[in-house]
Amino acid sequence: MIKTDALFLTLTAVEFAAVALFAVTGALVASRKEMDIFGFGLMATVTGIGGGTIRDLMLGSLPVFWVKHPSYLVICLSMAALTFFTAHLLASRYRTLIWLDAAGLALVAVLGAEKGLASGAGPLVAVVMGVITAACGGIIRDLLGGEPPLLLSRHDIYATAAMAGAIVFVGLTGLGVPRVAAVCAGIVFGFAIRGLAIRYRWALSPYKPRPGRNPADLEF
Amino acid sequence: MIKTDALFLTLTAVEFAAVALFAVTGALVASRKEMDIFGFGLMATVTGIGGGTIRDLMLGSLPVFWVKHPSYLVICLSMAALTFFTAHLLASRYRTLIWLDAAGLALVAVLGAEKGLASGAGPLVAVVMGVITAACGGIIRDLLGGEPPLLLSRHDIYATAAMAGAIVFVGLTGLGVPRVAAVCAGIVFGFAIRGLAIRYRWALSPYKPRPGRNPADLEF
Amino acid sequence: MIKTDALFLTLTAVEFAAVALFAVTGALVASRKEMDIFGFGLMATVTGIGGGTIRDLMLGSLPVFWVKHPSYLVICLSMAALTFFTAHLLASRYRTLIWLDAAGLALVAVLGAEKGLASGAGPLVAVVMGVITAACGGIIRDLLGGEPPLLLSRHDIYATAAMAGAIVFVGLTGLGVPRVAAVCAGIVFGFAIRGLAIRYRWALSPYKPRPGRNPADLEF
Repeated sequence: MIKTDALFLTLTAVEFAAVALFAVTGALVASRKEMDIFGFGLMATVTGIGGGTIRDLMLGSLPVFWVKHPSYLVICLSMAALTFFTAHLLASRYRTLIWLDAAGLALVAVLGAEKGLASGAGPLVAVVMGVITAACGGIIRDLLGGEPPLLLSRHDIYATAAMAGAIVFVGLTGLGVPRVAAVCAGIVFGFAIRGLAIRYRWALSPYKPRPGRNPADLEF
Repeated sequence: MIKTDALFLTLTAVEFAAVALFAVTGALVASRKEMDIFGFGLMATVTGIGGGTIRDLMLGSLPVFWVKHPSYLVICLSMAALTFFTAHLLASRYRTLIWLDAAGLALVAVLGAEKGLASGAGPLVAVVMGVITAACGGIIRDLLGGEPPLLLSRHDIYATAAMAGAIVFVGLTGLGVPRVAAVCAGIVFGFAIRGLAIRYRWALSPYKPRPGRNPADLEF
Repeated sequence: MIKTDALFLTLTAVEFAAVALFAVTGALVASRKEMDIFGFGLMATVTGIGGGTIRDLMLGSLPVFWVKHPSYLVICLSMAALTFFTAHLLASRYRTLIWLDAAGLALVAVLGAEKGLASGAGPLVAVVMGVITAACGGIIRDLLGGEPPLLLSRHDIYATAAMAGAIVFVGLTGLGVPRVAAVCAGIVFGFAIRGLAIRYRWALSPYKPRPGRNPADLEF
């Protein structure tokens, strides 16, 4: 009984933190693009709730989480207002964005995998759910804001870090580790991988790479 | 009894008008990009039903509205055909697009908020639902068509107008104003704000703005 | 009894083939962009399952198909690995992509229309479902990969071929042709149209075309 409560509290805290972190990254993009305060609100909200919305849709957990719990919207709008009035104090908004995004990525990946397992899906589906929901919030933010998508910086470890966190969580759960501990371990591991990749510009090599040609030059 | 019927008729008329208006804006983008008639049909359909589809998904009202009522598709395809054969008569397709989009925006915003309230959500969720569904149709159209997204013209009032309309509707409903009157007031207010913003180039100021730097120039 | 089984087997085979083909096209875009192996996995998965996911969402068939049947994910990841190690052997990845995309397009269009009919929707909804799901996988791939969207090459037959296949399937079904035969005929017809369009650069004419002007040059 008390264990379930601890798990529920942990997951709720993780969801709130993830929504808040991604909301700030959305607002930072709004700041980089010099939008007005409503633009901040919209970018923060869409980025904050984007990944979780797509997760709930795919799992069929409807209506989506923020329709059931409007406090997530309050978080997004508060973060938008906070960022609107303080972004000029930051030495580099983009650097802040990158690091908050890294933390959000790790949280969302593990949370997505947990919700996948909790809905009865197997480990593979859970990991994919974690990676896709972790990627989606950032993709929507970057597409809307016209930023270079973090996901697709080709020589960079991004989705890989989300996957690493989700795999550690799913693996530990499979080994019988208590759910709360597995959640924490997955988050720490995912964030560590992404953080080290940012700090030391880690990258995996492509195999026999060759850039794509322009379609207009090809015969069919 | 008769009141519920009036509300149902009003909402149906609003949905039809919103779908038709957004369908024409989609077809106008197809015309600007010189697509063939099937391109018109696709752009009109995706733009016309896009916002409402996302609204129904998030509220869990499935299958989505146009699967239940195919007449919405007939409207989209008719608008595509109409636009295909008449777009060359317009002095400026983009100006027409902007104004039809403004009207569609006001309709969709209030409709989204109404469906939110009707599904039992609170006022905050209803307003956010209105803004997101109002923004989505246009975003999809602009992303697909490669147009500069109306939503993100940074010194322009767009999402703000959708929010204003949704807030007026939700506020009046909360004050006990009959639902039909609140719907109409919200639509008129939202359209007025957007229209004045277009006509007089209204804009809200960003706070201590500073353009974003290029990520490639930053250290991590 | 045996007939239902033949239909079920056919549809399952079609879904697997469609997922595999689109997964390879996603991986080929990853290769053109010189991503690492995890980038291949993500692009293959998102492209492979994208169209079917959107179809299931709109029809309310939740959770989506790959959550119920993880083997589709295994297919996507296998295709990603296969492409990662063999893409350098191809003379032209883009030409391969175009042709695999054509085959996937025909399969997904008929499958979407079939699922539409099976869920009780009418012929118009079924055809639109086929076209939208056929277009979505490719659109997501091209948006994420920064490729010129196949769908929107303006003088090219793409969505039209998907529609042709879906219409042939729905029409034959309406005429009482056995479902399996109608599925096959629709696929062959859709692929033939797209293939001929690629080979002979078929295009439909726009009507009184005029390129769009730059919004910045307009008065409001």
